[in-house]
Amino acid sequence: MSFTLEDLDARLAMRAAASPEESYTAKLLSRGVAKCAQKLGEEATEAVIAAVGNDQPELTKEAGDVLYHLLVLLRAADVPLSAVMAELESRTAQSGLAEKAGRRGDR
Amino acid sequence: MSFTLEDLDARLAMRAAASPEESYTAKLLSRGVAKCAQKLGEEATEAVIAAVGNDQPELTKEAGDVLYHLLVLLRAADVPLSAVMAELESRTAQSGLAEKAGRRGDR
Amino acid sequence: MSFTLEDLDARLAMRAAASPEESYTAKLLSRGVAKCAQKLGEEATEAVIAAVGNDQPELTKEAGDVLYHLLVLLRAADVPLSAVMAELESRTAQSGLAEKAGRRGDR
Amino acid sequence: MSFTLEDLDARLAMRAAASPEESYTAKLLSRGVAKCAQKLGEEATEAVIAAVGNDQPELTKEAGDVLYHLLVLLRAADVPLSAVMAELESRTAQSGLAEKAGRRGDR
Repeated sequence: MSFTLEDLDARLAMRAAASPEESYTAKLLSRGVAKCAQKLGEEATEAVIAAVGNDQPELTKEAGDVLYHLLVLLRAADVPLSAVMAELESRTAQSGLAEKAGRRGDR
Repeated sequence: MSFTLEDLDARLAMRAAASPEESYTAKLLSRGVAKCAQKLGEEATEAVIAAVGNDQPELTKEAGDVLYHLLVLLRAADVPLSAVMAELESRTAQSGLAEKAGRRGDR
Repeated sequence: MSFTLEDLDARLAMRAAASPEESYTAKLLSRGVAKCAQKLGEEATEAVIAAVGNDQPELTKEAGDVLYHLLVLLRAADVPLSAVMAELESRTAQSGLAEKAGRRGDR
Repeated sequence: MSFTLEDLDARLAMRAAASPEESYTAKLLSRGVAKCAQKLGEEATEAVIAAVGNDQPELTKEAGDVLYHLLVLLRAADVPLSAVMAELESRTAQSGLAEKAGRRGDR
């Protein structure tokens, strides 16, 4: 069984209940949506730099940071991960239909 | 069975093999790492704006865009999603140990 | 006499009064602060990519785009450029004093 | 005489010659282009958040940070500010001609 985004999100839910002193996740959440959004922006920039600099080990870490901070932001904003995944599934299904119909194949 | 990030990644792998005319994913990949990185940066900014503007439906979509473009960037840079998930699992395990030892509880 | 940021801002003020059909600046402003902010985020990402990719001609253009879109955003948000320059002057004066006092020399 | 971007750039040139221990500017430059680019990305995100959050005093400061870090990045990448301003002047002249000719009026 591989570790999934849902596993990470379950872990965050647990940590969110800890005190800000014990948990970095709880601390971030206590600082509000804007702070969590800022962190996502920072980590995305770092992933961009690692990718353009062709640094795969660094990109691996920064991509992990993007995923972690995206989940924190969703939690801060009360958007469930399942809603995001349902949105992605719906797009994928639509692009599958588009393919069958001979139109633009994805997105 | 819910739709997962791995499902989306499998879908991208399939679409990457299509021609850039048929598939938006193939088109993005054909433009190279820097272009894929640029798209991640753009979508992260849009997620930040949706979050700070307290627009949950928009954040749901933009978070989906961030996940999609992160997977495209990883593919463009030849970093497997499994490596990113292994990195996240390893961090989670470490923070679990830290908790047991009574030290900083996560991250 | 060289072209200055204040010259560009005066130009923007003039263009802001045009119709959105005639002027890209007027069109951007008509779409509101969030859209103008999004453009700044995009251009900053492109400047980052040009810099990390060591592409000086591209960075020259993207830096121009950052300055242009920062001025548009300030205008959309009703913050005068002069207030930003006064802030920067004040910081510079403080760091000059810090130097004299033998403390941290700037910022 | 108002404080200008060129004044700030002259100040940076002076500070760049200091030791990284004395000067934040010198320290940033010593860390290389990628680090300077990362800072620009971070400050742009903060300006975006301040703008969307309708916080004018914060946007004034963050816009100052964007200008400062853009100048540091240009210096790290050996692109003179004058080249960026010449680019902006050239675009402005072109859009002026476009207006006279009754075509798209700016940008």
